Amino acid sequence: MKKLIQHVALYQDHRVLEGQNIAIDGSRITGFPEAPKDSEYDEVIDGKGMLALPGFVNTHNHVAMTVFRSYADDMQLMDWLEKKIWPAEAKLTDDVIYAQSMLGIAEMIRCGTTAYADMYDHMDQEARAVEESGIRACLCRGSIGIGPNAQAGLDENRQLFLDWHGKADGRITVMMGPHAPYTCPPDYLHKFVDQARELGAEIHIHLSETKGEVENIKQQYGKSPIALMDEIGVLDCGCLAAHCVWVDDDDMDIMAEKHVRVAHNPGSNLKLASGVAPVPKMLAKGITVGLGTDGASSNNNLDIVEEMRLATLIHKAHTLDPLVIPAETALNMLTEGGAKCLGYTDVGKLETGYKADITLVDREGLHWYPKNDTLSLMAYSANSMDVDTVLVNGEVLLRHKEFTKLDIEKIKAEAERTRKKLFAQI
Amino acid sequence: MKKLIQHVALYQDHRVLEGQNIAIDGSRITGFPEAPKDSEYDEVIDGKGMLALPGFVNTHNHVAMTVFRSYADDMQLMDWLEKKIWPAEAKLTDDVIYAQSMLGIAEMIRCGTTAYADMYDHMDQEARAVEESGIRACLCRGSIGIGPNAQAGLDENRQLFLDWHGKADGRITVMMGPHAPYTCPPDYLHKFVDQARELGAEIHIHLSETKGEVENIKQQYGKSPIALMDEIGVLDCGCLAAHCVWVDDDDMDIMAEKHVRVAHNPGSNLKLASGVAPVPKMLAKGITVGLGTDGASSNNNLDIVEEMRLATLIHKAHTLDPLVIPAETALNMLTEGGAKCLGYTDVGKLETGYKADITLVDREGLHWYPKNDTLSLMAYSANSMDVDTVLVNGEVLLRHKEFTKLDIEKIKAEAERTRKKLFAQI
Repeated sequence: MKKLIQHVALYQDHRVLEGQNIAIDGSRITGFPEAPKDSEYDEVIDGKGMLALPGFVNTHNHVAMTVFRSYADDMQLMDWLEKKIWPAEAKLTDDVIYAQSMLGIAEMIRCGTTAYADMYDHMDQEARAVEESGIRACLCRGSIGIGPNAQAGLDENRQLFLDWHGKADGRITVMMGPHAPYTCPPDYLHKFVDQARELGAEIHIHLSETKGEVENIKQQYGKSPIALMDEIGVLDCGCLAAHCVWVDDDDMDIMAEKHVRVAHNPGSNLKLASGVAPVPKMLAKGITVGLGTDGASSNNNLDIVEEMRLATLIHKAHTLDPLVIPAETALNMLTEGGAKCLGYTDVGKLETGYKADITLVDREGLHWYPKNDTLSLMAYSANSMDVDTVLVNGEVLLRHKEFTKLDIEKIKAEAERTRKKLFAQI
Repeated sequence: MKKLIQHVALYQDHRVLEGQNIAIDGSRITGFPEAPKDSEYDEVIDGKGMLALPGFVNTHNHVAMTVFRSYADDMQLMDWLEKKIWPAEAKLTDDVIYAQSMLGIAEMIRCGTTAYADMYDHMDQEARAVEESGIRACLCRGSIGIGPNAQAGLDENRQLFLDWHGKADGRITVMMGPHAPYTCPPDYLHKFVDQARELGAEIHIHLSETKGEVENIKQQYGKSPIALMDEIGVLDCGCLAAHCVWVDDDDMDIMAEKHVRVAHNPGSNLKLASGVAPVPKMLAKGITVGLGTDGASSNNNLDIVEEMRLATLIHKAHTLDPLVIPAETALNMLTEGGAKCLGYTDVGKLETGYKADITLVDREGLHWYPKNDTLSLMAYSANSMDVDTVLVNGEVLLRHKEFTKLDIEKIKAEAERTRKKLFAQI
């Protein structure tokens, strides 16, 4: 099926070109014709007044945790986990995970997100939701090496890879998901590395999120979490590392050398009082950085445009330098950088041959006036509700802010039904 | 004219009451009837699915600077001012100010803002825009005491008070607006204090915004900007102080004693790399704090909900304490605290006898599901585009996200026309 997006402003090579056309055949971009004939296309999308960007990428999520959105805020981390989250997580079932994944995926699509990375449990159900919804996702089974479910986590992650990697027209890929150094002892991590090597899978892991974690790991192993992961071989598999708030120059040198990709989650890091990751320094060292929302239980939404705004703002004040993370850097983290984080080689740019994962942003809101500079307006003034149209793999999932294939009222009702069911047991 | 908002969730006394009704007569809230009869009201507004909050207050703005939104970003402050902003500001005319004020006011209303404080030039034009738009505003003529326009600034601010204070059905109030200690020498500030005393006006001023400013003032006068202002009498007039990023314990003790109200502008302070104001400490000392966007040239939008979100997030990471600025504190800064900053005694709460400045927020977006806790969802997940209905002084200005009395297409066209006219001269 051939589609044409016409009369659109195109973000390409860090600049905006007005009055362009994007031709799509099946799942891929086939070109940018100057004078296309409508009759040659099965569907023509009017892009007038819109900015076309590569689809936004959310590089770190626990999507079904939408069930815990605003369930318990303004608490100390360990109180929150021990009294609220862990008892509730122990009661999670397949139908909660499926319903809450659908909710979170719909919310992400509404915000212009075309691909996301996720780490959680009952991942078959989430994969089902990805398949049905049309979004692109990079999934892993979040696995903890201490406690009775250690082997099950490893086995389920392996099975997830075998069952789902490359499925849903290639929209689903699977990584291995050991949770973090402080929950996964070295012998357990070695098993994950072995498994990743055997399968040809990459690894998604939380690293150096809090100061306390880094201090504990250094005390226990005599080296930083990054150095420990390097020693164990985690960084040699291709690694997506979430957070990396407390990394020093030596850590970042290792990360650069081993091509670790960083999921930067500014909203979560601020709200949980973890700190501010040294992103400007990472970028200066050539490390790939994308943006993540983290789960809605800690953030509390899945609005990746809000994360992009935070990334433009917080590093300027943290370094007292107004020039760090300029507009084009923020937009790159939101799109191309995020796609690289997830390991994609044909997603993240609006170029011929790339997958047609495209987000059209409406530029007619009051906050888009007057029309001084489109890139700056997108980075510093736009909000996620400006997103008008979303295509993934060439399929239109959102048009004029309405969902084309998801039944949103049913999704909201199911999210509410499964929340009540879960909390009735606690 | 009698209005009824029915079946609404009501934010009152830091909690949410479901299924309430709000009765309005003219400009004021007259009660919360349990079983109202529709026939007794001229207009009935269905509040089902909505949260009613006191109208949001933007405590610091330079609204006509929307003309410079995204005109020049990612620059050093002095480059930005000297090469971009000051040459352009010298060419501002009445029609630019009027058109850009209308744009900024419309944007604020769309984001749920019912009142704002402003400091700028050509203030007659802005007052005209306030009168016509229906918003509430506290205006002053921003005046600089060095240079040829010093006396004119003082005179125009006095005239602004005489012409507009208490006008537009009481929606317009006027303060005196000496720009800042680093642009207004003590003898000039003394003139403002004398004028404020004579008129019974309060003072709106920028204080301790940057580290460099505080260091310079200390070097020049041997005391901090706050202590210097106290000495000159600025703080005895009733003072709205913008920014207060670099204030120490002694400063905050003075501020608490003199009932200085603080306009906290987190987005501007982050973007310009000014720093993070010690807001949790201010609140602990009993200082009133509201939220401000600052001008769109430095922020780059007038989205006060975004500022509220920033205020919930940045202080947690800055103090490494996840308990500071909890949801109800953030909502208080957005509403009641902001109203106190502007000097209002009958605005900022949903209570009988208070002005009917009310913002209804739609709770049906995906990011409002599942329905765990309304206050937390408002503080940590909502966005400004959830605002559905806005009343100021009992008049409906926005209904179902559409403007009732402003011609938005004309406002956008005029903003663009006057921008082009201005920049054609530079």
